[in-house]
Amino acid sequence: MSGWKWNDSSRSCNGTEKISGLSVHGNFQNKQYVQVKNPYLETMEEDILYHFSLSTKTHNLPEMFGDIKFVCVGGSTNRMKAFAQFIHQELKQPGNPEDLRDICEGTDRYCMYKVGPVLSISHGMGVPSISIMLHELIKLLHHAQCRDVILFRLGTSGGVGLAPGTVVITDKAVDYSFRPQFEQVVLGKVITRSTELDEGVASELLQCSSELQNVPTVIGNTMCTHDFYEGQGRLDGALCSFSQEEKLEYLRNAYDAGVRNIEMESTVFAAMCRVCGLKAAVVCVALLHRFEGGQSTAPHDVLVDYQQRPQVLVSHFIKKRLGQII
Amino acid sequence: MSGWKWNDSSRSCNGTEKISGLSVHGNFQNKQYVQVKNPYLETMEEDILYHFSLSTKTHNLPEMFGDIKFVCVGGSTNRMKAFAQFIHQELKQPGNPEDLRDICEGTDRYCMYKVGPVLSISHGMGVPSISIMLHELIKLLHHAQCRDVILFRLGTSGGVGLAPGTVVITDKAVDYSFRPQFEQVVLGKVITRSTELDEGVASELLQCSSELQNVPTVIGNTMCTHDFYEGQGRLDGALCSFSQEEKLEYLRNAYDAGVRNIEMESTVFAAMCRVCGLKAAVVCVALLHRFEGGQSTAPHDVLVDYQQRPQVLVSHFIKKRLGQII
Repeated sequence: MSGWKWNDSSRSCNGTEKISGLSVHGNFQNKQYVQVKNPYLETMEEDILYHFSLSTKTHNLPEMFGDIKFVCVGGSTNRMKAFAQFIHQELKQPGNPEDLRDICEGTDRYCMYKVGPVLSISHGMGVPSISIMLHELIKLLHHAQCRDVILFRLGTSGGVGLAPGTVVITDKAVDYSFRPQFEQVVLGKVITRSTELDEGVASELLQCSSELQNVPTVIGNTMCTHDFYEGQGRLDGALCSFSQEEKLEYLRNAYDAGVRNIEMESTVFAAMCRVCGLKAAVVCVALLHRFEGGQSTAPHDVLVDYQQRPQVLVSHFIKKRLGQII
Repeated sequence: MSGWKWNDSSRSCNGTEKISGLSVHGNFQNKQYVQVKNPYLETMEEDILYHFSLSTKTHNLPEMFGDIKFVCVGGSTNRMKAFAQFIHQELKQPGNPEDLRDICEGTDRYCMYKVGPVLSISHGMGVPSISIMLHELIKLLHHAQCRDVILFRLGTSGGVGLAPGTVVITDKAVDYSFRPQFEQVVLGKVITRSTELDEGVASELLQCSSELQNVPTVIGNTMCTHDFYEGQGRLDGALCSFSQEEKLEYLRNAYDAGVRNIEMESTVFAAMCRVCGLKAAVVCVALLHRFEGGQSTAPHDVLVDYQQRPQVLVSHFIKKRLGQII
């Protein structure tokens, strides 16, 4: 790995840390480095983060990313660019938010923007797509010697028993059988990982929501599927072999198991963050009520408003942690 | 569904069909419409193809897409745009290839370009991402009343026992246990679908490769995994719990089962095309030899050349079918 010297002189250990010109208060005393669980990485001369178009040889990762404290990820490139511009304004960062540069511009797999201590990254749709991003993100944070990082997934989802526009903070990420686990295939063998998320961060987010207007929020379980149509009981895919009644029964069973929304990335996100000791939260807005149908007919501006709610909530959390809101 | 009138007057049934100003020869006499397997679709007043930002109400799909005969899909937006520009030149289409418009510009989930009878679409990474695209593509082709369509996945992959740069035409798409099947969860129940691809199209592609310089090609099985790192036996992810020897044993077992390359979309692509009666082929170049490592160190221009090979091969196939090469 690299032989870069890590300059620690600007950092104190008394619970207040100066990063990107901002004071960070709160639970940052632990100095918890981001851990990888791979003994081979330290023996590699170069680590190419292929899908980010970054490498330990061609980029000084500690200098570029060493002060990151909050990583926000979401499926859509446009939405994560918009989030970067939004948090740029919220944190009153210098310069024009329109000028933010995509750090991954050498590839079209993901986009990445840095705004002070916040990293905003897209991850595409589905478990495999976010899992590639997470492997390379965790290595990036490790190589950059980041500490006390919190990860947020900001997403859209289908709601279960909720009014459209409700934000769901995930309690447990569950699979298609409502189990809080993620099945990973390693060299052809299925292993199971826990998908528990950080309770403290979830509670803090719920508290934040109560301080905001127009961000109705609940804590509930989030079901993660590998398919948007048959897997989520939609009647409008190219394939559909079940009845409306069977669909409703499945969704009612999900509701009874505490599921309040359905998306396609939360289990692997929770599992990988947990294995690597990263605090993490999943914050998704429900765009529609799945008991009622599979397609949203809400007007464009209403959907845009809904999609901004997780951003507003997480931005509020970050500003509180940075001492910008007491 | 729509009540558009389908104008069939420009079409003959004698094995030569005029589409987009090009004569199409060969096996197009069958008039095989693209089938959906969903009885509900016909009862819907509007079908919103949400991730394409298209709808049966706002777009005249038969007019826009009715002459499509070849659909080429691949993970990367940049690569599928480049393919559209390449096939534009190859088919000597009027206008400037630089001016091709992204039909899905209303969304950032996928990109889509139409060049005469060819549609070029990106699908992101992994089974869930391509499966959303395929549901909406198959519905699009159905709504547009397309006939005798062939689908190609043009991709990149890791090679197993092959020199980097070799193109693999998929015989059978297999899962992590080398079985030619795809497990789909429908309302919480796992069902299994066959992943057989069209033998005739595969043979025709192999014949095409023999007519080209510099496109070394084999037919072999393609393993589809849901993870790029642990699932494919890479030693350079954020997580790695196995030894170099265990990795090699898994890859050797894959080789013995006929696997020649590894990627992340082929099983669901094969399964969905098969269920809907679509002829389909998977054509991926092997960027590296996985016995040797997990990261490619080939220079950029070599990788660019490799990535063009599936495009050159499929373009040759299309030109032959269109009678531009005898």
